[in-house]
Amino acid sequence: MRGLHLDRGRLSLRGDLPEPSPRPDWTVVAVRRAGICATDQALVRGYMDFVGTPGHEFVGVALDGPLRGRRVVGEINAGCGECAECRRGDARHCASRSVLGIFGHQGAFAERLALPTRNLLAVPDAVSDDEATFVEPLAAALHIADDIEVGPGVRCLVAGDGKLGLLCAMALAARGAEVTVAGRHAERAALLPPSVAYRIGMLESQPAGPIDRFDVVVEATGNPDVLARLPALVRPRGTIVLKTTTERPVAIDLAPLVVDEIRLVGSRCGRFEPALQALAERRAAVAGLVAARYSLADAESAFAHAARRGVLKVLLEP
Amino acid sequence: MRGLHLDRGRLSLRGDLPEPSPRPDWTVVAVRRAGICATDQALVRGYMDFVGTPGHEFVGVALDGPLRGRRVVGEINAGCGECAECRRGDARHCASRSVLGIFGHQGAFAERLALPTRNLLAVPDAVSDDEATFVEPLAAALHIADDIEVGPGVRCLVAGDGKLGLLCAMALAARGAEVTVAGRHAERAALLPPSVAYRIGMLESQPAGPIDRFDVVVEATGNPDVLARLPALVRPRGTIVLKTTTERPVAIDLAPLVVDEIRLVGSRCGRFEPALQALAERRAAVAGLVAARYSLADAESAFAHAARRGVLKVLLEP
Repeated sequence: MRGLHLDRGRLSLRGDLPEPSPRPDWTVVAVRRAGICATDQALVRGYMDFVGTPGHEFVGVALDGPLRGRRVVGEINAGCGECAECRRGDARHCASRSVLGIFGHQGAFAERLALPTRNLLAVPDAVSDDEATFVEPLAAALHIADDIEVGPGVRCLVAGDGKLGLLCAMALAARGAEVTVAGRHAERAALLPPSVAYRIGMLESQPAGPIDRFDVVVEATGNPDVLARLPALVRPRGTIVLKTTTERPVAIDLAPLVVDEIRLVGSRCGRFEPALQALAERRAAVAGLVAARYSLADAESAFAHAARRGVLKVLLEP
Repeated sequence: MRGLHLDRGRLSLRGDLPEPSPRPDWTVVAVRRAGICATDQALVRGYMDFVGTPGHEFVGVALDGPLRGRRVVGEINAGCGECAECRRGDARHCASRSVLGIFGHQGAFAERLALPTRNLLAVPDAVSDDEATFVEPLAAALHIADDIEVGPGVRCLVAGDGKLGLLCAMALAARGAEVTVAGRHAERAALLPPSVAYRIGMLESQPAGPIDRFDVVVEATGNPDVLARLPALVRPRGTIVLKTTTERPVAIDLAPLVVDEIRLVGSRCGRFEPALQALAERRAAVAGLVAARYSLADAESAFAHAARRGVLKVLLEP
């Protein structure tokens, strides 16, 4: 089949990729559309030493199994099914998991992929293909609320107005929190719900005077230098949520974390169902984040476009 | 009055220190005994640019106010009494607080000190002077359980077998957790409750094979290089508690925190009452941690003794 293949930093279109092999309790999915994520760009730069087909934000059509013929999205962690984590229903932390298009598992930038059937969810008609490609990152954004209390009266700052930052702001606003986005592209304020405040320049320097510190600060820039500035923006006993991995170690003064008893919470993948529901109920308006669509044959241009400063979501179609 | 005075790294005994001035709702305390803490040693090296009398782990006798004549210990944060934090009863995070012997407040290495009367607690007869000097650090150790769940079945690792590490191990064991101490002084195992396991060499290198990762890891070494090794010792969705401030920034790879969704929790001062109660009920055996007692006149020797490798608590008496 056709698909992208990544090997030592080179991404190429191949016509001879092996079909995903059918396995009991797995479903083969024909990919309709897939989003390029910052993680995909990091993989190309060498993150995880991944060799194979990247891509993990997708919508497709199930070709076999109980969902055959339905449009589906799929959770990207495939667990062993037997360990304590898997038995608790959380393959996200199975020590032997593979991760679609990221680790040990061929991904979505191809004609077809396979996932455990239990990972798949049918997409309601109210959710378009474009929107459905956002279920994975929106689920990750909504997952913040699984670990910390966010709701009415909770003052949240989202650091970063990239794709993930905007989705985190939408997710927190959908939970009723008071959200401010600290960004660098003033025009993006228009992509956010009206209740979300937008500020430029907050992360570029230490605040000069005393500021009204936030209950929760979400790191969504992926910039290691930003993290060091966040403790000054969160109130004592508040929380910093790390939504991005950085590619190099961060030099950080941890003393303010101790003195102000701040929590730093690492946060990764979320459950798909609440994200799909938020899209179906129009509680998260993601369609405005799509910058362009390319065919797999133009993947090189698509990745170059996605890497351009200020570009939001670029989608690929087989 | 007599007391120690710290100015630009020089600690000297002075006979002409001003008496603590009486204030409404404050109590003057005659110090009986005070412990030298790692923070005091850091202050001498320049931490906080503190000028004045250090010392914050003390037991004394109230000279006025409602506890006059009683032996007392005292919480070290003196709040403004009016802000939201103070009205909630938590002066520990008052933005205008002073901190006894650490910030804006003359400390316990002197004949007398003063604290808000509400900060003081009477010491039961069952608790000796030596033991009472441990109320402050034991309260800090017990405070871990205010922020995270520790109890039967929770596997905790305490990194470090200095004073704070041993107190954290005692505190966690008193809460019923399964505790292991990763230390460097095998003889200290004898100072710990019999239920606590003790291991040498865990922090010096990355574990070679897979290890049974802990639910909670407490950083109590103060060594910035140790922190970077801790994510590998905690299970996915587990917690690292930071009990020490380090004097220099730490270079840390935060990606494992995100991938394994680990929480890093800064933890500082605790409430005194549970600590005093644990001592009175013999649930924490701290007397064995006392290495030596010196008079204020021998403070220089006392600090030199406390700084020696492998020495636990050194006490000062006016």
